Amino acid sequence: MAPNGTNGTGPARRRKQERKQEVVDVAARVFHEKGYGSSSIQDIADGVGILKGSLYYYIDSKEDLLYEILRGVHEEAFQQIEDAVAAETATMAKLRAFVVALFTFHTENLIRIGVFFSDFRSLNPERQEAIIRERDRYDKLLRDLIRQGQEEEVICPDLDPKVTALAILGMVNWIHQWYKPGGGRTARAIAEAYADFALAGVACSPETHVPGHRRQLGLEEAVAAAE
Amino acid sequence: MAPNGTNGTGPARRRKQERKQEVVDVAARVFHEKGYGSSSIQDIADGVGILKGSLYYYIDSKEDLLYEILRGVHEEAFQQIEDAVAAETATMAKLRAFVVALFTFHTENLIRIGVFFSDFRSLNPERQEAIIRERDRYDKLLRDLIRQGQEEEVICPDLDPKVTALAILGMVNWIHQWYKPGGGRTARAIAEAYADFALAGVACSPETHVPGHRRQLGLEEAVAAAE
Repeated sequence: MAPNGTNGTGPARRRKQERKQEVVDVAARVFHEKGYGSSSIQDIADGVGILKGSLYYYIDSKEDLLYEILRGVHEEAFQQIEDAVAAETATMAKLRAFVVALFTFHTENLIRIGVFFSDFRSLNPERQEAIIRERDRYDKLLRDLIRQGQEEEVICPDLDPKVTALAILGMVNWIHQWYKPGGGRTARAIAEAYADFALAGVACSPETHVPGHRRQLGLEEAVAAAE
Repeated sequence: MAPNGTNGTGPARRRKQERKQEVVDVAARVFHEKGYGSSSIQDIADGVGILKGSLYYYIDSKEDLLYEILRGVHEEAFQQIEDAVAAETATMAKLRAFVVALFTFHTENLIRIGVFFSDFRSLNPERQEAIIRERDRYDKLLRDLIRQGQEEEVICPDLDPKVTALAILGMVNWIHQWYKPGGGRTARAIAEAYADFALAGVACSPETHVPGHRRQLGLEEAVAAAE
């Protein structure tokens, strides 16, 4: 039987886990406020209220903390999105759920998401790869939904699932640049408006589809205006 | 008549301007590679190939360089977008031109745009405000195009111009996170695909418009699937 020490499952290990999570959360705040490059282990120790030396009981380096933040944020995001998508039946409803869930996750994790976008490149290449693999899981989920919608003829056959998935992820991921809680619109209202835009941007039906019709938007008007 | 010195308009002043631009360009590369927080004036002097002391002939601080980079990138982007939009007549064609021009500007300025997104918050508050005012010019141009399209009944009256403009800017601005030159698709092809998506996402006509129809996407399918 394992002792209730650092390798066991008892209170001591649990306390260490909780304390480590606290260290990671403080690190996220410090990195977000000062920038990763300008933050020191001393800043984080000060934020937690422990000696700098004690911090090394939980982590080996500043980069360990960055990795823990970024790995955690991706795992949680994917879990929430996967659950939201699985709760729907129809493909377009799943796509709406994807956009709303990703948007909502962002608005509820502004600090950690901010650190991700500012400091991802500060990870060593192996760790960047590990995070990218994690991120690819929800890129793939979105691409597969778009392909599924094309097979079911509810999404335009003209569009490229990969490029369209990047466009949708981009518009949602971008919100960390401007979203502030407590504005005039609720996060949910904006999330649904984003979903309206994304779904309208891909929706199509065999009755009205003409090859290239989306490319004609703007172009045919330009021709008409010139006549 | 001003002498041909640093305050005049002659060759000496021009040489100083050119040299300063070179310093700014090198600074953008250094900040992009090392991160602003981790970069030193010494790194930039080394990149230009001059003594650190000589660099202070062109700028007073590292933050001056960051500001020059970010101010320049916004001014140029706005000019290119404004020209592209002005070259079209119809509103939807202007909207397509906006998306394509902004996308193209990003793909051609990956380093400076990367610095903007990583290090904007390192500017002092007054300078952040100045950059935000500059950025607001093209946010406003996009919102005004959407409102114009709504008045002309080519864009859905249900949508919120401000939220929709943020969605469109987000999807384009995000490309600095993934775009690499020389991939399978040309920048122009992806830009047009983004424009297809954005225009389809807002397009509407009085003949087919029913209030709330975009919100029903996904929802009505969900109801149908449950029946």
